[in-house]
Amino acid sequence: MLADTAYGKSGVRLVQVIRRGDRHDLRDFTVAIRFEGAYDESYVTGDNSAVLPTDTMKNTVYALAARGPVGEPESFGLSLARHFLERNPPLRRATIDIAEHAWGRISVGDRDDGQAFVRDRPDTRSARIEMDRAQIRVCAGVTDLSILKSSHSAFDRFPRDEYTTLPETRDRLLATSLTATWWYLEPDIDFGPAWRVVRRTLLEAFAEHHSESVQHTLHAMGQAVLDCVPAVADIRLVMPNRHHLPIDLSRFGMENRNEIFVATAEPYGLIEATVTRA
Amino acid sequence: MLADTAYGKSGVRLVQVIRRGDRHDLRDFTVAIRFEGAYDESYVTGDNSAVLPTDTMKNTVYALAARGPVGEPESFGLSLARHFLERNPPLRRATIDIAEHAWGRISVGDRDDGQAFVRDRPDTRSARIEMDRAQIRVCAGVTDLSILKSSHSAFDRFPRDEYTTLPETRDRLLATSLTATWWYLEPDIDFGPAWRVVRRTLLEAFAEHHSESVQHTLHAMGQAVLDCVPAVADIRLVMPNRHHLPIDLSRFGMENRNEIFVATAEPYGLIEATVTRA
Amino acid sequence: MLADTAYGKSGVRLVQVIRRGDRHDLRDFTVAIRFEGAYDESYVTGDNSAVLPTDTMKNTVYALAARGPVGEPESFGLSLARHFLERNPPLRRATIDIAEHAWGRISVGDRDDGQAFVRDRPDTRSARIEMDRAQIRVCAGVTDLSILKSSHSAFDRFPRDEYTTLPETRDRLLATSLTATWWYLEPDIDFGPAWRVVRRTLLEAFAEHHSESVQHTLHAMGQAVLDCVPAVADIRLVMPNRHHLPIDLSRFGMENRNEIFVATAEPYGLIEATVTRA
Amino acid sequence: MLADTAYGKSGVRLVQVIRRGDRHDLRDFTVAIRFEGAYDESYVTGDNSAVLPTDTMKNTVYALAARGPVGEPESFGLSLARHFLERNPPLRRATIDIAEHAWGRISVGDRDDGQAFVRDRPDTRSARIEMDRAQIRVCAGVTDLSILKSSHSAFDRFPRDEYTTLPETRDRLLATSLTATWWYLEPDIDFGPAWRVVRRTLLEAFAEHHSESVQHTLHAMGQAVLDCVPAVADIRLVMPNRHHLPIDLSRFGMENRNEIFVATAEPYGLIEATVTRA
Repeated sequence: MLADTAYGKSGVRLVQVIRRGDRHDLRDFTVAIRFEGAYDESYVTGDNSAVLPTDTMKNTVYALAARGPVGEPESFGLSLARHFLERNPPLRRATIDIAEHAWGRISVGDRDDGQAFVRDRPDTRSARIEMDRAQIRVCAGVTDLSILKSSHSAFDRFPRDEYTTLPETRDRLLATSLTATWWYLEPDIDFGPAWRVVRRTLLEAFAEHHSESVQHTLHAMGQAVLDCVPAVADIRLVMPNRHHLPIDLSRFGMENRNEIFVATAEPYGLIEATVTRA
Repeated sequence: MLADTAYGKSGVRLVQVIRRGDRHDLRDFTVAIRFEGAYDESYVTGDNSAVLPTDTMKNTVYALAARGPVGEPESFGLSLARHFLERNPPLRRATIDIAEHAWGRISVGDRDDGQAFVRDRPDTRSARIEMDRAQIRVCAGVTDLSILKSSHSAFDRFPRDEYTTLPETRDRLLATSLTATWWYLEPDIDFGPAWRVVRRTLLEAFAEHHSESVQHTLHAMGQAVLDCVPAVADIRLVMPNRHHLPIDLSRFGMENRNEIFVATAEPYGLIEATVTRA
Repeated sequence: MLADTAYGKSGVRLVQVIRRGDRHDLRDFTVAIRFEGAYDESYVTGDNSAVLPTDTMKNTVYALAARGPVGEPESFGLSLARHFLERNPPLRRATIDIAEHAWGRISVGDRDDGQAFVRDRPDTRSARIEMDRAQIRVCAGVTDLSILKSSHSAFDRFPRDEYTTLPETRDRLLATSLTATWWYLEPDIDFGPAWRVVRRTLLEAFAEHHSESVQHTLHAMGQAVLDCVPAVADIRLVMPNRHHLPIDLSRFGMENRNEIFVATAEPYGLIEATVTRA
Repeated sequence: MLADTAYGKSGVRLVQVIRRGDRHDLRDFTVAIRFEGAYDESYVTGDNSAVLPTDTMKNTVYALAARGPVGEPESFGLSLARHFLERNPPLRRATIDIAEHAWGRISVGDRDDGQAFVRDRPDTRSARIEMDRAQIRVCAGVTDLSILKSSHSAFDRFPRDEYTTLPETRDRLLATSLTATWWYLEPDIDFGPAWRVVRRTLLEAFAEHHSESVQHTLHAMGQAVLDCVPAVADIRLVMPNRHHLPIDLSRFGMENRNEIFVATAEPYGLIEATVTRA
């Protein structure tokens, strides 16, 4: 028996230049399309008569983009999902994932150039559309937002067993590479401003929190988003703890006044939760 | 409100040398530990009194490994999960993920050296243990098994729309980088032989299948595992279609008799399904 | 016989927090140290009596950082190189490579937080010090600076042979991920401002150039740096051509007015040159 | 003034299927082409009249492959270099780099399938051809060959200073990810067997060496290749020291009898040398 079947196309790279005289705009997306539906025959008997080729999915991304400015990733994802559902009777649910890569304008002297761009953030904006015959759901997110705070971060009063060697601390570096995703209550909001408000709220809440743990800060960040952005139904935060360990300088007859750290890649703590409205 | 909370440690690198005289054995694991349970207080109030540090989880991996040969990754994962559940009352479910990196012996002349090793497979063995107060579940897998067949692969008789440009073919290269995971019916089987049989069965089924699509071959591979390995309850296969496109040589006045291909990384098809017993 | 021997430590991650009351500063370096000298005995006979352990090199990075603010990467590299040359008679040349990862301050409302940071550029600053008993050379650079221009870029009037299918164009997207490295004439300049001026000059020259090819723009960028920054002796630019190919929409009965592109990762052109003063 | 100019195409992915009845052979190459020559005009004035497009270089890879089996990577690289030098008068030197990705046959029962393949080694074979109007040089290599020995590896009697904390040891794990490249004395040898002998010799020498340091083992491996393979002129070895650190189990009241290690990714030692004939 078959379960949880899905097929689609990933890694579809789309760059659109919107030419408004001397001032161009740029959108840079990586799109993934995923179909779930009545496709079991293709698996079991090799009958492809219902299987829209993934190559056609890719072509459709470019064809729909050619109709006009793609706009926000959520809006473009909605267009794609609607298109596929209208045309493909066996399709039960279409999921569209879009990652947007950020470009800023290059400044020349004191003005922004209209036609030259530089990648300006290492973090990525994400959007997910889940659409079926009855329902449309829109999710937005930010991927790999690297943040660090050098004060107001503690971790102590935890249980100890015979394998516990971690010292308690009231003053540690807290660094993470945040991935957050949030579902909107409605599928027709103003996605650009909403995304920017959520990202800013996450940053501010991280900066201002007096942290007792990554868990504690994660919750404060999620809570702040729910408090400040009514359009958000719930938010999931995944926060790897990018440990910055103080170097033991006493071996060299020196003191480390919480200034010298080694940034480690592994192992890493991994803290996750979803904060939802009651 | 909080939902789907989890915390743990990832990327714990463990190498064990088992020294039996001149012949050493090697196990090379990357371990991840994930706790789910009554930890909401730590998120909401910053009370860490129930939060076993992830640093202690890491230490526990090494301490338990020091008791004796770790054995198969599934067995070691079971020991870890049991240890954590016994010691941590708030813990509802422990999930242990282990990736095993394969080493073979270096041959010197016509014998295998007992103490020198070479990494011998690019694919990785995986194991997952999910244990709670009532139940133990064991999953095994293989990650990124790159396979390719140069015959008996077709893709045709698919629906066409105005954006379909893909030609039909009865003879294409089929390449994928398989990730498969399967749950065992019982948590106490002989994990090493079972894993090897499943891997070999996947390879043989891939080689022998007359493929009408990736979906079709995925199903045949899953079916073969269920048919040949009674210990397996169900198997999930994720198969990116690593497209190998024939080069159009007609532009150079040459013919491509299905011999010259460009291997592409993106975009890629992505085909998934779980094959289960009825 | 032995030639081109070198040994050292790479991947030394150093994060320094400089605490000035409520306002902290952050430096985030990845350091590599490379020794060349009279170390042949260690290779040939296994005599380690001259071989300062690479573990000690790593410790030295942290110990020297603990003396006070590390400052610019070039300055810290100079301190490291001097330290090693003074202490190690067999050492003929020390090379220090430092990559600096950029952090900006998180804004809270309309002010910058003093103790919370966000990674703010995907490109990396680099510094290299080459020091021997007679000479000190300082190199700075920028790694993976992704830039794109949507006008004033052509590629035509190139030679054609029987394998040439590329159409000529007067209007293409030009994108690259620039890595530039430049040597300073003197080892004691004000490294921070110099680096910022070179980076800005590279961006402006890229934006303003009317490009006939990647080669043409590379030269203009290098020339601009030599013209604007007298401290620079020469500059090397490595510019992969990140091809953005216009999609053929005519297959869908549509026209591509140079607006819809696929960004490709491979294959890629690779253009390199050093621009030097006469 | 311009120096060290070069341009070319990288990341050209070529897969060739050689169909001999039921038994197919597979070659899987990533090719890079690099031109050096009289191309300064293109940089300085934007005159492209001498600049063979890198897109044509890519096409040429496929066109030459279509003439017949590509054979060993060195042989195919020689054909490419000759082709480009014959056709391009401004070209002074052509450098061709080829990485070969290894595929083995899938076994079905007790026979090898003729048309189904599995990637069978994580390390990569490399070849480099440097050809100018007067000379042809051929280099071969192996990239990222991960090897580990669990005995006969020491590091002691090294100098200590105030920052040295490393303990001396007569018994440590030695692991590296070897990249080796060697130049052949003549450009017309039997490249396949030569490559296999060098790789086997490197492995055997690593296994059998009583190591006082990475440097010491590096030299022994290079020396063994020069001793066993007369066709090799010199060999360069780059050996990152993939440190496997013994875990301090005494904190848990346990003893580590050199059995439990953490494999670390950074920092890492980096040891390099070229071993040449006198």
